[in-house]
Amino acid sequence: MITFDTILDARKRIGKYIYRTPLEKSIALSKDVNVYLKLENQQKMKCAKIRGALSKITSLSEEERERGIVAISSGNHGAAVSYASHLLGITNTTIYVPETTPRVKVEKIKHYGARVELVGQNYDQAHEIGLERIKSTGATFIDPCSDEVVISGQGTIALEILEENPNIDTILVPIGGGGIITGISVAAKAIKPDIEIIGLQTAACPAMVASLRDNKYYETYPTEESICDALVGGVGYIPFKMAKDCIDSIILVEEEDIKRAIKHLLLKEKLVVEPAGAIGVAAIMKNPQSFAGKNVAVVLTGGNIDEALIERCLGDWD
Amino acid sequence: MITFDTILDARKRIGKYIYRTPLEKSIALSKDVNVYLKLENQQKMKCAKIRGALSKITSLSEEERERGIVAISSGNHGAAVSYASHLLGITNTTIYVPETTPRVKVEKIKHYGARVELVGQNYDQAHEIGLERIKSTGATFIDPCSDEVVISGQGTIALEILEENPNIDTILVPIGGGGIITGISVAAKAIKPDIEIIGLQTAACPAMVASLRDNKYYETYPTEESICDALVGGVGYIPFKMAKDCIDSIILVEEEDIKRAIKHLLLKEKLVVEPAGAIGVAAIMKNPQSFAGKNVAVVLTGGNIDEALIERCLGDWD
Repeated sequence: MITFDTILDARKRIGKYIYRTPLEKSIALSKDVNVYLKLENQQKMKCAKIRGALSKITSLSEEERERGIVAISSGNHGAAVSYASHLLGITNTTIYVPETTPRVKVEKIKHYGARVELVGQNYDQAHEIGLERIKSTGATFIDPCSDEVVISGQGTIALEILEENPNIDTILVPIGGGGIITGISVAAKAIKPDIEIIGLQTAACPAMVASLRDNKYYETYPTEESICDALVGGVGYIPFKMAKDCIDSIILVEEEDIKRAIKHLLLKEKLVVEPAGAIGVAAIMKNPQSFAGKNVAVVLTGGNIDEALIERCLGDWD
Repeated sequence: MITFDTILDARKRIGKYIYRTPLEKSIALSKDVNVYLKLENQQKMKCAKIRGALSKITSLSEEERERGIVAISSGNHGAAVSYASHLLGITNTTIYVPETTPRVKVEKIKHYGARVELVGQNYDQAHEIGLERIKSTGATFIDPCSDEVVISGQGTIALEILEENPNIDTILVPIGGGGIITGISVAAKAIKPDIEIIGLQTAACPAMVASLRDNKYYETYPTEESICDALVGGVGYIPFKMAKDCIDSIILVEEEDIKRAIKHLLLKEKLVVEPAGAIGVAAIMKNPQSFAGKNVAVVLTGGNIDEALIERCLGDWD
């Protein structure tokens, strides 16, 4: 179960390791609507996922820690698990990534001490091989979207938002696997039952929209070309099961609008935000009228954007 | 007097209004040297100067607050004083700026409630007219570089740096008027007498270098063209008088190297930093060997960079 109490417990465990990131009003975006940006792009490792990784690792027994920790991710989650292990002095951590992973991402994971195993030609193959190998070692697998302790860690974001500004009535959260929105929703609705939790997906991969429409768990989902690495693929099982209670609506956002939001955040707000993190701002910029009169918190989930993409986003609209 | 105690007192007054900004190790810059970035570009109003403004305003009596507050600055200091007044519920604040100030800067100052008076054709004229008008009102003038209470507020940066990492043996600080380096040095040397405090100036306007060389107070100083608005012009009187005790050495940095540092910070560190804030990183990138073996904290003093300049810095080196 993910409850308000499991989220409060997670905060007690992880509080000293993470930043309480700012919730800052955007002057530029606040006209008919008041827009507050939750700056998880300034979180440790520049991503919100560190909260979930730390929540899980701090919950393990000494014996479990000794058997080791495993994650399967070449992106923010893999780096977050490596960093969280480092913080807690755990030396037996392995991250499985596809053989095609760029060297710079591998180096980032290795920097904090985790072993990196290059296996399979893509994420699905790496996932299969990684899970198979765990069986023989008894290591703990840290799943970002199908683990209640991880998701409870993500929920701590909502505690901070509503403590900082109790007038927030709407929270916009990107949906990849759905772990972050699920944790945030449980916490936020416990504090303020009528708060509206709106999910955001790239139109290139509307997996949660399809799951809800078809009432079907899409563990994988086809994707068109997308700049939002963190938002493509299927949904997590727990987020799928809890979606009807947790997600009030989902907005699909076009890739071009996400690029515009990245540019706005960089030039006007002086913030570096990755595509998945910028999707909420894209939704508001596209249709501010639909939020008129509201006090909206937008979770900027991460800041790890590829350098080439920064240059592309700036160049596209002069 | 600016002492360790006046800096501790300043922290007591301003602590609840500001962020304790992160001190983060730069993986990319740490090879032979360990480089830690003090992220005042993520401070409230995206600049370190808010600390000094708050330090002064929180020290005023009720009667002084009623007589009003005045600053003369179209940049970070003006906006910081407006914001600090807003935080403390002071409604009688006036910022004098030259008539040539861009509208976007005027709007930013006005946003937090200060009156803006456009006077004179340049900073020196605005300064003269502003000071003349204060005489009749009895308002408190907040000077960023010649006020001990303001400079004590800036010194709180050093408390945070050395609490976060007591192994820091060198701090790099930009010098404009010199208020920030003076406050930082007093605090840092009180905690750790052998710490090295290195100042940075743009080669376009080496006012403090000249003041020390000539043992002469250059209240104004000629400048070549520079992207570092915050680092041109003369030095403050208190920083000049205290420089021999506070500043161990000064490095002059070329404008081209500052642009390179802005680009590095944006693309590699995912940080938006204004030119004055990036000058320390420029010094390390230019000559890392001169810092070999050291644990260096670099103060990124602000993040308010013009959008056109972001694009120029990215475009210049592909």
